[in-house]
Amino acid sequence: MNPTNLKNRNLISISDYSKEEYLKILDLAEEFEKYPRQDTLKDYVIASLFFEPSTRTRLSFESAISQLSGQIVGFTDASSSSTQKGESLKDTIRTVCNYSDMIVMRHPLDGSSRYAGEIATVPLINAGDGSNQHPTQCMLDLYSIRKTQQSLDNLKIALVGDLKYGRTVHSLVEAMSNFNTEFHLVSPVELKLPSTVKRFIKNANLNYYQYTELEDVMDVADIVYMTRIQRERFSEPLEYEKVKNSYILTKDLLQGSKDNMRVLHPLPRVNEITEDVDDHPKAYYFQQALNGIYVRQALLTAILGLK
Amino acid sequence: MNPTNLKNRNLISISDYSKEEYLKILDLAEEFEKYPRQDTLKDYVIASLFFEPSTRTRLSFESAISQLSGQIVGFTDASSSSTQKGESLKDTIRTVCNYSDMIVMRHPLDGSSRYAGEIATVPLINAGDGSNQHPTQCMLDLYSIRKTQQSLDNLKIALVGDLKYGRTVHSLVEAMSNFNTEFHLVSPVELKLPSTVKRFIKNANLNYYQYTELEDVMDVADIVYMTRIQRERFSEPLEYEKVKNSYILTKDLLQGSKDNMRVLHPLPRVNEITEDVDDHPKAYYFQQALNGIYVRQALLTAILGLK
Amino acid sequence: MNPTNLKNRNLISISDYSKEEYLKILDLAEEFEKYPRQDTLKDYVIASLFFEPSTRTRLSFESAISQLSGQIVGFTDASSSSTQKGESLKDTIRTVCNYSDMIVMRHPLDGSSRYAGEIATVPLINAGDGSNQHPTQCMLDLYSIRKTQQSLDNLKIALVGDLKYGRTVHSLVEAMSNFNTEFHLVSPVELKLPSTVKRFIKNANLNYYQYTELEDVMDVADIVYMTRIQRERFSEPLEYEKVKNSYILTKDLLQGSKDNMRVLHPLPRVNEITEDVDDHPKAYYFQQALNGIYVRQALLTAILGLK
Repeated sequence: MNPTNLKNRNLISISDYSKEEYLKILDLAEEFEKYPRQDTLKDYVIASLFFEPSTRTRLSFESAISQLSGQIVGFTDASSSSTQKGESLKDTIRTVCNYSDMIVMRHPLDGSSRYAGEIATVPLINAGDGSNQHPTQCMLDLYSIRKTQQSLDNLKIALVGDLKYGRTVHSLVEAMSNFNTEFHLVSPVELKLPSTVKRFIKNANLNYYQYTELEDVMDVADIVYMTRIQRERFSEPLEYEKVKNSYILTKDLLQGSKDNMRVLHPLPRVNEITEDVDDHPKAYYFQQALNGIYVRQALLTAILGLK
Repeated sequence: MNPTNLKNRNLISISDYSKEEYLKILDLAEEFEKYPRQDTLKDYVIASLFFEPSTRTRLSFESAISQLSGQIVGFTDASSSSTQKGESLKDTIRTVCNYSDMIVMRHPLDGSSRYAGEIATVPLINAGDGSNQHPTQCMLDLYSIRKTQQSLDNLKIALVGDLKYGRTVHSLVEAMSNFNTEFHLVSPVELKLPSTVKRFIKNANLNYYQYTELEDVMDVADIVYMTRIQRERFSEPLEYEKVKNSYILTKDLLQGSKDNMRVLHPLPRVNEITEDVDDHPKAYYFQQALNGIYVRQALLTAILGLK
Repeated sequence: MNPTNLKNRNLISISDYSKEEYLKILDLAEEFEKYPRQDTLKDYVIASLFFEPSTRTRLSFESAISQLSGQIVGFTDASSSSTQKGESLKDTIRTVCNYSDMIVMRHPLDGSSRYAGEIATVPLINAGDGSNQHPTQCMLDLYSIRKTQQSLDNLKIALVGDLKYGRTVHSLVEAMSNFNTEFHLVSPVELKLPSTVKRFIKNANLNYYQYTELEDVMDVADIVYMTRIQRERFSEPLEYEKVKNSYILTKDLLQGSKDNMRVLHPLPRVNEITEDVDDHPKAYYFQQALNGIYVRQALLTAILGLK
């Protein structure tokens, strides 16, 4: 198989794609950034199956599809699906394959996307499966990093917040380990990056540094990647209350940061970036969300074999 | 009126159509199976009003419409409708007629579709009203039977499971009584086919045989039509628990069945067909679901007078 | 700025537009009534953000957009939005601006639309914010009055029901105060028109008359504008029970009314107009709902600068 041929291949985890394939998608996304409105998906029906609600990811996919003149069928939460009648995920997926050319799926259970992808007779893109994987978020993060830094190579990236449960952080570490990155990891002790994820860094012979204070990385980093400490990932509410206000990026903290530094955040944000940062020239998180449109257009059309 | 002119006529119950009209729709569906992507519904807006959730039927209709370039407005459950504000069904329907060229409606109450159809100033297709009628399911069943058996005439059909409450079974008995069918009815004693439905068989001078064991019909039938014993149709949970595992079709049971025999199921399935049957050449239920697209395309376009 | 140039301007309140601008929209709506199906919105993506459910307004907007070949992304209630994850309205709006060319928003909180409109980088239409404003309803009311009376000038308008909380009444009083209207206000004592709204009448040197009995205005009015006494606007259920049946328009009450008189209602209705009135030639409320399509098409295309 041609290593950069993505046609009919699922995207479940960032590990499914090689470095060359990431770069191919980023290049294609650049083209869509220039011409996001096309007829490329005319006559295609995409199933958008959200077994748990997500405004941002769902609307980004649906807008990406709509701008390319594609059609969407699906549901926005599990309560309007046949799961309520006791149907297995397997049967739902097999049925939906009859109705669509591709499936975009979000599901609360870890691993559900891999399983669904094995059953599906049309290609499937994972739009988030529990705390496991969210590869299109990772692709738009890569796109945003490359766009703001001109290259993915030799960067110093600070990852801040919940590094233990944050799936976007895990994928980003994995992906960026291909590009000679220096990792600066900022988290409370109980939310450190798991050793299974650190292994990507070690296997690439790269270095990481661990911190508990946000200010320690602000003058070093090319990218400061903030994350929400998500209530829904904690089984114990008290543990959440203890750490939720640990890392808050304020305008003051931006002083002394490098000129090329940009702040990213997968959004939604709660309070971990103060609102006065939003209009700062180093704040890039809303533009980052917009980049999601182009990256998803690239993925959809590449996987359908249209680009 | 030309008996096979379906333009502007509601489809509320399978009884609304004559035998000739069924056959006309099946022929038209065959054309759509060859060319499911057309611009036939361009500039048409179809209202998809689901007062109770249904993934399968809703997505099938919406995909059928999307593939013909039609537009959809509507809701996926009653909680996002004005019913919550105390509005009558009558007013909702009259209003929605202002917004659309046709209505597809599912509602939890028996008879609601007939009532809505009388109010509507645009044609209305019943997508299921309580335990009463689900005529587009019946049409796709007929299509699937004809496609697998080459003809609807002179078949032996086994109907298995909940024959008392199963609306798809009732409609199928009514429709197939036009085609010299021999009926083999398999159910627990408390879920036997009601006498009101048996009357269709008697009026056509046809025969039926009743069984309590599934294996008794497996070597006789041309079609084995399995049904889910639906929890939501029982007012008494204990009664459901008693009968829910009565009829389970396994791979072993397929041995000795006729070569032309095919297993149908309206789906969703819970456990009444084991998963190892899914890939058996006699399993036809997922293909049956796909046929729903073509049959619904035929109905939509015939009723709008476009075919 | 050209006073009748609506391009890129938000519509939050009826006060945002001048008399000339109302009339421009009504004229444009008349054109859409002749040709409601066009390709004007092809390649445009409109976000439809309903933070509380509303069949009528949402379906009217979505049908208006669909008939002009536009695409829709969005949600139908807050439970499928990121608000659930603690996201601020500000962040939701900024993100959705990345996904769409215009926002249509309904929200349960008074003033939320004004706030959202200030953040948004694409134009925003208020589709109702709590008990505050619902300007597109007002525009379709104006359209319906002009259409049935040939002119907006010098009319006698009776407003009936909940004049205290009814936002459609408040906007209509404000708008009609531009057209030398005589106002006849019928309500229980505890639901009289607030003095802040009466000021529009006084500032225009117009007259109003207050009544507690519906029959007192039936032979005087050119327009009888009925309103629902909305349960959800009362904090005290007993107060609602006391007044809910105060004003019920029956067929008998129509006797003696002027020939040109027409009954309007913003819908949904509960019991304040009896069903036997629906087919009376003076009942205009369902046609009024249909007019919403044309008025919204006019607003959408004017604000996008396409007309």
